[in-house]
Amino acid sequence: MHAPRISSFLPPRRILMGPGPSDVPRRILEAMARPTIGHLDPAFGDMMEQTKALLRYAFQTQNELTFPVSGPGSVGMETCFVNLVEPDDEVIVCVNGVFGGRMLENVRRCGGVPVVVEDAWGRAVDPDKVEAAFTSHPNARALAFVHAETSTGAQSDAAALAGIARKYGALTIMDCVTSLGGTPVRIDQWGIDAAYAGSQKCLSCTPGLSPVTFGERAIEKLRARKTPVRSWFMDLGLVLGYWSGTGKRTYHHTAPINPLYGLHEALVMLAEEGIEAAWARHRTQHEALKMGLEGLGLRFVVPEAERLPQLNAVALPAGVDDAAARARLLREFNLEIGAGLGVLAGKVWRIGLMGASARRENVAACVQALKAVLAP
Amino acid sequence: MHAPRISSFLPPRRILMGPGPSDVPRRILEAMARPTIGHLDPAFGDMMEQTKALLRYAFQTQNELTFPVSGPGSVGMETCFVNLVEPDDEVIVCVNGVFGGRMLENVRRCGGVPVVVEDAWGRAVDPDKVEAAFTSHPNARALAFVHAETSTGAQSDAAALAGIARKYGALTIMDCVTSLGGTPVRIDQWGIDAAYAGSQKCLSCTPGLSPVTFGERAIEKLRARKTPVRSWFMDLGLVLGYWSGTGKRTYHHTAPINPLYGLHEALVMLAEEGIEAAWARHRTQHEALKMGLEGLGLRFVVPEAERLPQLNAVALPAGVDDAAARARLLREFNLEIGAGLGVLAGKVWRIGLMGASARRENVAACVQALKAVLAP
Repeated sequence: MHAPRISSFLPPRRILMGPGPSDVPRRILEAMARPTIGHLDPAFGDMMEQTKALLRYAFQTQNELTFPVSGPGSVGMETCFVNLVEPDDEVIVCVNGVFGGRMLENVRRCGGVPVVVEDAWGRAVDPDKVEAAFTSHPNARALAFVHAETSTGAQSDAAALAGIARKYGALTIMDCVTSLGGTPVRIDQWGIDAAYAGSQKCLSCTPGLSPVTFGERAIEKLRARKTPVRSWFMDLGLVLGYWSGTGKRTYHHTAPINPLYGLHEALVMLAEEGIEAAWARHRTQHEALKMGLEGLGLRFVVPEAERLPQLNAVALPAGVDDAAARARLLREFNLEIGAGLGVLAGKVWRIGLMGASARRENVAACVQALKAVLAP
Repeated sequence: MHAPRISSFLPPRRILMGPGPSDVPRRILEAMARPTIGHLDPAFGDMMEQTKALLRYAFQTQNELTFPVSGPGSVGMETCFVNLVEPDDEVIVCVNGVFGGRMLENVRRCGGVPVVVEDAWGRAVDPDKVEAAFTSHPNARALAFVHAETSTGAQSDAAALAGIARKYGALTIMDCVTSLGGTPVRIDQWGIDAAYAGSQKCLSCTPGLSPVTFGERAIEKLRARKTPVRSWFMDLGLVLGYWSGTGKRTYHHTAPINPLYGLHEALVMLAEEGIEAAWARHRTQHEALKMGLEGLGLRFVVPEAERLPQLNAVALPAGVDDAAARARLLREFNLEIGAGLGVLAGKVWRIGLMGASARRENVAACVQALKAVLAP
């Protein structure tokens, strides 16, 4: 076979204002380019412990079992479900967008019995419906919901939902892929038992890592399992031999060293800024973007009280060619915004203000580019 | 919660001669530090297609379905098993080291019925035993074996093993994590139906990606499945909507953008060197290392004819404190070599010569450092 003649890939420089990845600061990219060391090197072990401490801060939790899974957010999601759902377990799953639907699919593939609570795409999960689901299914073992629906930009009341689950003795599994670092996530205060996030949203790191956290009640469920976890790679009982800080670190899989340097740096930057300041920055830039978008006549999909500052879904104006307009934004303005997903495909645009993308220059560039593209 | 006061992580500079990760060339690290773009950006799509072509060259295959899974080698392994093994499928699994054992565990968790062919750790898989296993289990659906056992440094005769499987109408699943790019891997010529590798061995990229390839017969098996794939993330039927080059690329998960830049660069470098030249380089450096190690009185674990050039397992000399000696190599010489795994823990050292680590300076540094540490 002949060797293909292919040159180094030199990516264009984009302004990333889609639903993630967000702009990755130079400082994080440079951290990823530091020399690779071994996954069992004591120096790497120290970095792992620091990363866990930094993630506890990001999640606002004391959970010992807090670490980044070696895969994208979907692997973090699946890690939660394969470990915490056994065949025939009833699980209440809230579906108000694509990622709730993915949770549902996970429950099914684990052999669980899903009880679906549906809400309109673009709306928060309705706690009353969740309460009703528990009333009719009092033996449900878990409640699963998405805190910040990336497909719609709706935020749900995690504290209220977790409170209902706890009343019925069920675990809460929460998707906070798009909220972590952007809007308040308070694992301990809200009583969330298991949660997963992503590296490439409000943490502004490269995609490919999924921070997760598990509380005591989740660990009890894990210990009490009657069946083996269906996945070898995601079996927490095995992964922990590597990520737990106590005693000898044993090999499970080879951790993605350089991406983990990047996540460490992203979390150091979050700690330097202060998480409350990061939340406030996302809010401030959202207000600016909102003014700009409304000035262009664009209409938000999500009611104001349920709206995420970092993910702005607006209805596609009548007469605009979705794909052509986004292609022009990319070609002429190097600006990436997100298309609609699922039932909202072709109907909305999703404009992300996540992590380092939540800055004044980006808001200005985005509003100006949209103005040009939407001009009659 | 107070923000932890943690600084940027500045890793030490090591010479990586363990079982992987191997030394990552500056050029690859710099590729990973290029600006992040979106996973649906057309420019990224072009890079994906190039990566697939480059991987076909590395695997020596025409298989259209050749791409990097977004996770470490263990996820590549699990991707093969969850897709190709259904509950109650009989699978012949060859175990001659840790990774054969991991394949066995995968078969079990997929609900398959494993038929184990055991060989001594440090020896190749015996084709006669595989033939005998098929004779007594003629309905076995698949044969699984490790081409290059990273835990021992033994290489098996992949062509012979795949030939037996084909005779009995079974699929062949091959682990070539440690062989890809280091010793000949010829997927098409050998008739391998599915194989997985790792980014951090002879390709010298950062860990966290797993190149896989699937042939027509594997795809037929996938199409003929009676049960859904147990994993959502690894379900090839879904992943392909994103990685297949035909038609519109649809979102499945957010690909690890920057690590994929690194893999692309590593594969461009392999194509530039030429794969035969890369194989020859691994062989040449192995010969040099062998002379050096034998000069120090070290004894190879694997018989010469079954020995991998890129993974050199030697018996720990009597009276040497394993952990203390390796700690000294790391501390005084910045040299990482690998400990024994499984039944070989505490009994062997594994010295890797993989990818960019397979160079004269490394061989010299390693032999000199070992000489110092082993001096009475």
